[in-house]
Amino acid sequence: MEEKLMKKLEAGALNFEAYFSEKALGMKASEIRELLKLVETSDVISLAGGLPAPETFPIETIREIAQEVLEKHADRALQYGTTKGYTPLRLALAEWMRKRYDLPMSKVEIMTTAGSQQALDLIGRVFINPGDIVAVEAPTYLAALNAFRYYEPRFMSVPMDDDGMITDILEEKLRKLKAEGKKIKFIYTVSTFQNPAGVTMSEERRKKLVELAHEYDFIIVEDNPYSELRYSGKPVKPVKHFDDEGRVIYLGTFSKILAPGFRIGWIAAEPHFIRKIEIAKQAIDLCTNTFSQVIAWKYVADGHLDRQIPKIIEFYRPRRNAMLEALEEYMPEGVKWTKPEGGMFVWVTLPEGIDTKMTFEKAIAKGVAYVPGEAFFAERNVKNTMRLNFTYVPEDKIREGIKRLAEVLEEEIKG
Amino acid sequence: MEEKLMKKLEAGALNFEAYFSEKALGMKASEIRELLKLVETSDVISLAGGLPAPETFPIETIREIAQEVLEKHADRALQYGTTKGYTPLRLALAEWMRKRYDLPMSKVEIMTTAGSQQALDLIGRVFINPGDIVAVEAPTYLAALNAFRYYEPRFMSVPMDDDGMITDILEEKLRKLKAEGKKIKFIYTVSTFQNPAGVTMSEERRKKLVELAHEYDFIIVEDNPYSELRYSGKPVKPVKHFDDEGRVIYLGTFSKILAPGFRIGWIAAEPHFIRKIEIAKQAIDLCTNTFSQVIAWKYVADGHLDRQIPKIIEFYRPRRNAMLEALEEYMPEGVKWTKPEGGMFVWVTLPEGIDTKMTFEKAIAKGVAYVPGEAFFAERNVKNTMRLNFTYVPEDKIREGIKRLAEVLEEEIKG
Repeated sequence: MEEKLMKKLEAGALNFEAYFSEKALGMKASEIRELLKLVETSDVISLAGGLPAPETFPIETIREIAQEVLEKHADRALQYGTTKGYTPLRLALAEWMRKRYDLPMSKVEIMTTAGSQQALDLIGRVFINPGDIVAVEAPTYLAALNAFRYYEPRFMSVPMDDDGMITDILEEKLRKLKAEGKKIKFIYTVSTFQNPAGVTMSEERRKKLVELAHEYDFIIVEDNPYSELRYSGKPVKPVKHFDDEGRVIYLGTFSKILAPGFRIGWIAAEPHFIRKIEIAKQAIDLCTNTFSQVIAWKYVADGHLDRQIPKIIEFYRPRRNAMLEALEEYMPEGVKWTKPEGGMFVWVTLPEGIDTKMTFEKAIAKGVAYVPGEAFFAERNVKNTMRLNFTYVPEDKIREGIKRLAEVLEEEIKG
Repeated sequence: MEEKLMKKLEAGALNFEAYFSEKALGMKASEIRELLKLVETSDVISLAGGLPAPETFPIETIREIAQEVLEKHADRALQYGTTKGYTPLRLALAEWMRKRYDLPMSKVEIMTTAGSQQALDLIGRVFINPGDIVAVEAPTYLAALNAFRYYEPRFMSVPMDDDGMITDILEEKLRKLKAEGKKIKFIYTVSTFQNPAGVTMSEERRKKLVELAHEYDFIIVEDNPYSELRYSGKPVKPVKHFDDEGRVIYLGTFSKILAPGFRIGWIAAEPHFIRKIEIAKQAIDLCTNTFSQVIAWKYVADGHLDRQIPKIIEFYRPRRNAMLEALEEYMPEGVKWTKPEGGMFVWVTLPEGIDTKMTFEKAIAKGVAYVPGEAFFAERNVKNTMRLNFTYVPEDKIREGIKRLAEVLEEEIKG
C-alpha cells in the first residue's frame, strides 16, 4: 500500500488527455465565448451577446403561475415526466400553433426539449450519418453548426440575400449533386429574422423550398425562435405551413417569448420522426424539466403568452430603430448592413479585405464589442462580416456603441 | 405545381425510415417502459417504477424559495447561464460534499447537468471510442447502459454479492485483459444502495477499486444518487473519498433529495475532465435550467437539504421495512432477495429456469407489477431476477403486492 502510494506520487499527475475519445479530443471551446468572457469584466458596450433583455421577462406572471403550480400541481410538476413532454403543454402548443400559423396539426405531433439547442443535437443524432450532406444558410446559427458537427456531416452552404436563402442557387447545387448521384439529408434554416443575418425568407422562397425538398427528396429543419418578435412589416407563415408531406421538422422555443432560463423548446413534426427523436432523448436525459414545463403550460393555456408578446415587441422596437438609425448616421462609406423587421440581430458587411477578427481588439480598445462573422460560416471562409445585437443594451448605449464602432471601421477602411 | 402535387399524392406517405441515421435505426424503445405504460392504466399494484414518493418533496420550502428567487434573483434565474452551471450552486455543492463526505475539494471542480442521466451521456461522449471496454456491475443501472450504448463500447460485466461489486473478480478480469494487451476505459459503479440490486460496496472494496484503477490505469465513474437515503447501518464514504489521483468522476443528483422534476444533477471531478465535459455540453444544450439551479442553490445553501434528508428517511424506512417483512412472510422456498440498508430497490433472485419476463403477464393478471431483471445485465444473459421498488407505494399496498407476487412465484416454482 505504502509502496503503491509512492509510485503514484512519483508518476505525478495523470495524463488526462489519454482517456478522451477521439471525437472529444477534437472538441474546442468556442473562441467567441472565450473572447466574450473578457468583455464581461470591462466597461465595454457589448453588441456581441445574444441575450434577451431581462426587462421582457414576465416576472410577476411567472411568480403567480409558480405559486399556482405548487399549490395545485406539485405532485406532477416535481416528479419525473414522460420523455415526450408534459402532455397539457404539448396540447396547448399544438392549439397555439394551429391558431397562430394556420398549421394542419392533425398530422403533426409535438414533443418538448431542453431548449432548441437540444433539439438540434437530437436531430443530428437521429438523422446524420458521417459524410451525409447537410445544407445550411451562409451565414447560419453558430451553435447549430456546433451541434451538427459532432455527427460528422459535410456542410453545403447556400448564400442569402435580403429575402433569405437564395433558393435558385440551392436548386442549382441540388441539381449538380444529383448529377453526381448524391443528395442532401436535410437543410437547416432559421427562416424568420435569421440569426445572425436578421433577414427573413420570402413566402415565395418558402414555397419553392418545400417543392425542392419533394423533388430532391430531403428534409427541412426549420428553426424559428424569433418570428414572434416582429417590429414592422407583415407576418409570414412558417415553412411548415406549406408542408403537406411531413418533410418539415419545426423547432420552437420559449427562450425569447418567456425566458431562456427555463430551457424549454419544442419540436413539431410528423409522428414517425417524433417517435424516433423521443427514443433518442430517453437515453440522453430521460425527460425535460417538468416544473418549467408546467409553468410554460399555464403561460400558454391561460393566454399570458399572447398578452406578453406585444409588450416584448414594444420594448425591443426602439432598440432596433436606434441601431438602424445609428448605423445610418455614423457608418462610413463601404459598410453595408441588413434592415431586420424583427428578431435580435443586424448583420454588417465591410469592404473586402477587412478581417473583423483582426479589428476586434481595436474595437474593444474603443469600448465596443461585436461578434466576428467568420464562425457563422460552415467553411469559415468569409472574414469581412460581423453580428450586432440590439436587444440587450439600451438605446443610448446602442447609439454610443455604433458610434465607437464606426470610428474603428472608418480608420480601418482608410488605412 | 398542380402536377407536382399530384405526384406527391400518388407517391403516398414518405418512407420515414429512409432518413434516419444508421445508429438511429438501431435505437429501440425500452421494453420496460412499454410494459409499464400498460400498468399505469390498470389497478395493478406497481412495484416496478423507480419514482420517489411525492410526499417527500418539500413543496412548502420550494414555494418559499421560488418566491424569494423571483423577487431577488429573477434577472439571473430566468436568463441563459454558463454551461458549467450556476456558480453559487456549484460552490454550495462543493462545500456540502466537503462537509458530508470529507472530500478534498481543492482538486475537484463541480459542474451541473440536466440530471445524472445527462452526465452519463456526456461521459459516453467524452470518453468512449467505439470498441472501448467499459466495465459495469452485473446487474447495473439500465439507463446507464442505454446512455453508453450509443457510443458503441464493449461491456465487461463484474458480478456482485452483498458487499457490492466483487473486486477480486474484477482484478482477475483486468489481469487477463492486460495479458491480451487490452485495458478498460472506465468502470461504472452505483456504489451505494445500487440500482437495481440495493447492495452497497464495502469500504474495503472501495479502496481496492481505487488501487486497481491506478494499477490497471482506468477511470472510475461513481454514480451516487441514493447514499443519503440510509434507513439503517453505518454510512460509508464515496469511492471519490479514497481517490488521490483524480481518477474518480463522481455523479450526484437532486432527484432523490429534492425533486426529480427539476432535472438537476452534478459532476464532481478533476478540472481537466470537467473542462472537456463542459465543451461537450455546450453543443448539446448550452446550459442547464437556470431557474431550477437557483432554487437548488438556496435549498443547499440555506440548510434546507440537511433538514429535509431526515424527513425523507423517516418516510421511506417503514416502506423498506414493510417490503422486507412481507418478503420474509410470503415468499416461497428458493426465492432470495437483497436486504438494502437504503435506497429504493430490492433485488429478487428466483430458482434457475424461471424467466421473469415470462411470469410478468401472470403477475399483472394477479394485480402486481415488477421489472424483469434481464435488461439490467449488459449481456442480457440472466433471466431469473427482478427489481422491486419500495418508495412509491404505501406500506399496505407493498404487503399486498408482495403477497400477490409470492402466489405467482409459488405456482411457477411448483409448476
